[in-house]
Amino acid sequence: MSPKITTELLKQLRQVMKNPRYVQEPVQAYIVPSGDAHQSEYIAPCDCRRAFISGFDGSAGTAIVTEQHAAMWTDGRYFLQAAHQMDSNWTLMKMGLKDTPTQEDWLVSVLPEGSKVGVDPFIIPADQWKRMSKALRSAGHDLVPVKENLINTIWTDCPQRPCKPLITLDLSYTGVSWRDKIVALRSKMAERKVMWFVITALDEVAWLFNLRGSDVEYNPVFFAYAVIGMNTIRLFIDGDRMMDPAVRDHLQLDSTLEPEFKIQVMPYGSILSELQAVGAGLSPKEKVWLSDKASYALTEAIPKAYRYLTPYTPICIAKAVKNAAETEGMRRAHIKDAVALCELFNWLEKEVPKGTVTEIVAADKAEEFRSQQKDFVELSFATISSTGPNGAIIHYKPVPETNRTLSVNEIYLLDSGAQYKDGTTDVTRTMHFGTPSAYEKECFTYVLKGHIAVSAAIFPNGTKGHLLDSFARSALWDCGLDYLHGTGHGVGSFLNVHEGPCGISYKTFADEPLEAGMIVSDEPGYYEDGSFGIRIENVVLVIPAETKYNFKNRGSLTFEPLTLVPIQTKMIDVNLLTEKECNWVNEYHQKCREVVGAELERQGRHEALRWLLRETEPLARVQ
Amino acid sequence: MSPKITTELLKQLRQVMKNPRYVQEPVQAYIVPSGDAHQSEYIAPCDCRRAFISGFDGSAGTAIVTEQHAAMWTDGRYFLQAAHQMDSNWTLMKMGLKDTPTQEDWLVSVLPEGSKVGVDPFIIPADQWKRMSKALRSAGHDLVPVKENLINTIWTDCPQRPCKPLITLDLSYTGVSWRDKIVALRSKMAERKVMWFVITALDEVAWLFNLRGSDVEYNPVFFAYAVIGMNTIRLFIDGDRMMDPAVRDHLQLDSTLEPEFKIQVMPYGSILSELQAVGAGLSPKEKVWLSDKASYALTEAIPKAYRYLTPYTPICIAKAVKNAAETEGMRRAHIKDAVALCELFNWLEKEVPKGTVTEIVAADKAEEFRSQQKDFVELSFATISSTGPNGAIIHYKPVPETNRTLSVNEIYLLDSGAQYKDGTTDVTRTMHFGTPSAYEKECFTYVLKGHIAVSAAIFPNGTKGHLLDSFARSALWDCGLDYLHGTGHGVGSFLNVHEGPCGISYKTFADEPLEAGMIVSDEPGYYEDGSFGIRIENVVLVIPAETKYNFKNRGSLTFEPLTLVPIQTKMIDVNLLTEKECNWVNEYHQKCREVVGAELERQGRHEALRWLLRETEPLARVQ
Repeated sequence: MSPKITTELLKQLRQVMKNPRYVQEPVQAYIVPSGDAHQSEYIAPCDCRRAFISGFDGSAGTAIVTEQHAAMWTDGRYFLQAAHQMDSNWTLMKMGLKDTPTQEDWLVSVLPEGSKVGVDPFIIPADQWKRMSKALRSAGHDLVPVKENLINTIWTDCPQRPCKPLITLDLSYTGVSWRDKIVALRSKMAERKVMWFVITALDEVAWLFNLRGSDVEYNPVFFAYAVIGMNTIRLFIDGDRMMDPAVRDHLQLDSTLEPEFKIQVMPYGSILSELQAVGAGLSPKEKVWLSDKASYALTEAIPKAYRYLTPYTPICIAKAVKNAAETEGMRRAHIKDAVALCELFNWLEKEVPKGTVTEIVAADKAEEFRSQQKDFVELSFATISSTGPNGAIIHYKPVPETNRTLSVNEIYLLDSGAQYKDGTTDVTRTMHFGTPSAYEKECFTYVLKGHIAVSAAIFPNGTKGHLLDSFARSALWDCGLDYLHGTGHGVGSFLNVHEGPCGISYKTFADEPLEAGMIVSDEPGYYEDGSFGIRIENVVLVIPAETKYNFKNRGSLTFEPLTLVPIQTKMIDVNLLTEKECNWVNEYHQKCREVVGAELERQGRHEALRWLLRETEPLARVQ
Repeated sequence: MSPKITTELLKQLRQVMKNPRYVQEPVQAYIVPSGDAHQSEYIAPCDCRRAFISGFDGSAGTAIVTEQHAAMWTDGRYFLQAAHQMDSNWTLMKMGLKDTPTQEDWLVSVLPEGSKVGVDPFIIPADQWKRMSKALRSAGHDLVPVKENLINTIWTDCPQRPCKPLITLDLSYTGVSWRDKIVALRSKMAERKVMWFVITALDEVAWLFNLRGSDVEYNPVFFAYAVIGMNTIRLFIDGDRMMDPAVRDHLQLDSTLEPEFKIQVMPYGSILSELQAVGAGLSPKEKVWLSDKASYALTEAIPKAYRYLTPYTPICIAKAVKNAAETEGMRRAHIKDAVALCELFNWLEKEVPKGTVTEIVAADKAEEFRSQQKDFVELSFATISSTGPNGAIIHYKPVPETNRTLSVNEIYLLDSGAQYKDGTTDVTRTMHFGTPSAYEKECFTYVLKGHIAVSAAIFPNGTKGHLLDSFARSALWDCGLDYLHGTGHGVGSFLNVHEGPCGISYKTFADEPLEAGMIVSDEPGYYEDGSFGIRIENVVLVIPAETKYNFKNRGSLTFEPLTLVPIQTKMIDVNLLTEKECNWVNEYHQKCREVVGAELERQGRHEALRWLLRETEPLARVQ
């Protein structure tokens, strides 16, 4: 991977930062956030402004360009990747390390007195604006909204915003109709005494209307906003996709409906002016509910006294708790996904020794096997297919420049998943196709112990996921090892593979308590820069637990793995496992055999079935 | 314990809430916070306003009185105590439970439109003011400062503010002179570019000047403020205690000193006007550093643009990391404390069967044994001496009405500690003087497993204490048990038994990372309302750990117990312990034998020594 040469681009950007055509006054710094106008983590090509200006295309990172400097903040998953992708014009700011300054502190340290710092008000979330604006103001600088995006002014071949057809989901997939979701939402609005609710996150719009799209790769969403009143529904969406009869029928656009369920379809670009009109027409005490992560531009459209901001919207919270139809869909999706991976690993076992399988070939093969499964739509993220040292690049994606051939001498890490119409998958397995070293097995086993500690954890109702994060690290910590990422994230149901408001991470304190029906990943790891990476990831469902004393009727929770793919026993140092851990592995493998075995049998995939049976032989612990 | 009858007092308070002599406009609600003007947790009798108005005298709680309601917010430690001490005028708000409203939400739900909510601006911390003021304003109400404390207007026999003599501490106790502490503080101020630093917390003033007092029971502090400039030192303190030659000599008040070390002594009550003068005289860019928990009144004395607020002051952070002299002092104090407790438990073992030892007698006896030790000053908090159902009242203090006789049929919980001139102790042991039931042993053993899990935890440098909290709960959670309090708090060195900025609690996210030299408690518990309480508490020192891989030179930490008092093996169900846990207990007891045994021998306390040897026999695990 050779870095992008950005000297000329930075020169152009610095020129427009002073150009009165775009800025009222020159800005001495310009912030290029990671997201789009919807706070999306995965973004469409037209929104990849930070990647365009810097070369760094990881899923998280903020660029700041001043007259003298260009700096990039990203987290531990991307330190190596960012260092590889950026040229020497850029300074990498490693978030999470003790000596790394915050963006605000850094700006204050490098800016001349009384500077202006510009940012696109449609891209920056309101809470970030507030924090940064305050910090800059207290140091004598100003954060200013620059209406025209300055990257767009120099991005001559910027692609068009996508506008692809929609998919409608019926009750067998969603469990609840969009009308019933609107009713539930309005009851939450009434509880909080708000009159309007503004939906800015793409997955929230998709979930509410039981629609899916493909405007953003990997995330089955479409560009839209929605504004829900107590008696009105406005959907802001472009293109002729609302002419599709299936969509019209699904949304009952042509039916005679009670007025409060009549959907008004409006142009995507009219959201700001419509919101400003809503804001101007409010009577005292009429509140408008927005996420505090909605863009600064939209938040400002509502006068401050009328705003009701919360970190998580009621849709975000409702969406996280899967109903029976969604849970069953997720189970089905994970069984199909396991079938594909059994096929893949069986194939890899035969092919790797020949020396012809590269990371890209393996990733493509995984996609091929997945695409053979019913209701497959697309991948749920770019497959991380990495061998040897590439495994230590936490969110690595193989490209021709880095593409490495799998061998019997290196650890292979595959983190991959798919979107099926009935569910979203995300699974990581770490395999060795030869003989792993004692040290590799030792590290793998500590990671496995951490994985089991979370998966088998029992905890009282109301516990927040971040309180479980250290369980995943304890075995690693005992030996002086750790990993620089969180342990788990929420997973959508045929929606975004990363979703809030729950997760398992030492970095998050504002997560919502875990409750039965939530789905998260459990993915501790260990990474040795320059040599290998290990990660073991299952998607797990929060379920009620049986305990001896049941927390005085407060209720107990635990996890049930939805992912049912064998964990390579060759990599396990059985002597490092406790009896309980050993039993966990054996019971997990027994379930893989039964459930995935039956499906392999049904699909007539006999060779993969034989592989599964071999890989799920019980561990024997030597006392 | 019969509740305080507050009907008349509440009537009087509601009258002054409308009395133009005290309030510009009537207030529809009045907040009575727990603390004093220094954000102290333990307060002088003259500051016990919340206890005066409600009867509830636990260490944490906020009362709010409206025209119709009186409500008290407190945490899990005090649910039972508050319910016992308050009459039916009061509603108990159980913080930490899911359905308990916040103070702001409750106010909004009960107040008539456009209400005024009053509070003493000297008592409410600025961060709380800000949060509450914002919440009330957004609901159409106003938080207003009421200069004259309304409780004081109806508290006719309010005691005087104490003003007791000071103790000077020499280098053998403190390790660092006050001058060197000032130098270090000024260098921190220079780093942050602040010109003034305002000290409002009593333990921070005491620590900075190497002075101690006894104005507040259990906390060796004295009423004072300090304002440190780059070239000036102002100490705001009342009484003739500054006439004491030892104090004058210690502070070099009569020496010819470099001007920047000359201490100006000013009246305690002049802090507001002096700060206002500082505030008025600031040039642009001159910042004043305050804790964000300083009172609203003092914070407002500095114009907003000049304030530099942090959650923890540099003194709070420096004070938490004990130097070699302090650590050695803490070790000595804990050995002496263990001697006293060996004597006590030996005595209890003989006396309890006679049926004459009450909770108060036992607490007094503990104090008597402690007071025999060198450099004993006072207790470090009110002894929690509780048997049977009283043990479930987490911060119980025996009083004649509740005083229960210890017996061979009930669990006895003793949580106690002392201030010695060389250190502060805090230890909890749970004992049975007869035959514990299988269930009692089971619960005790889970608590012990949690205690060991924290004490033996190994974690990377930079880990925050709250990430260790779940380790203490895991064994309890597995069986559906939990406890409603944090696992540990910072402990001062001959200072407050509770101090920031570190601790081990699921409730705290803003704690500072643990580092070698910090001292915290490790005290999981289990409480069965109406029958018993179990808690096992050691004070532990953060020390570097030896690990196989040492976190790639990031460094490893663990804990060393400073408390060396046997854990009753009779209460342990050995079969529930792992081999590692069993070894931990045996090694801990071996250390108690060696270190405390030697001191008992030296002090000629042979009977207590025999008790110690008997109580520290190694556990044998049956496989």
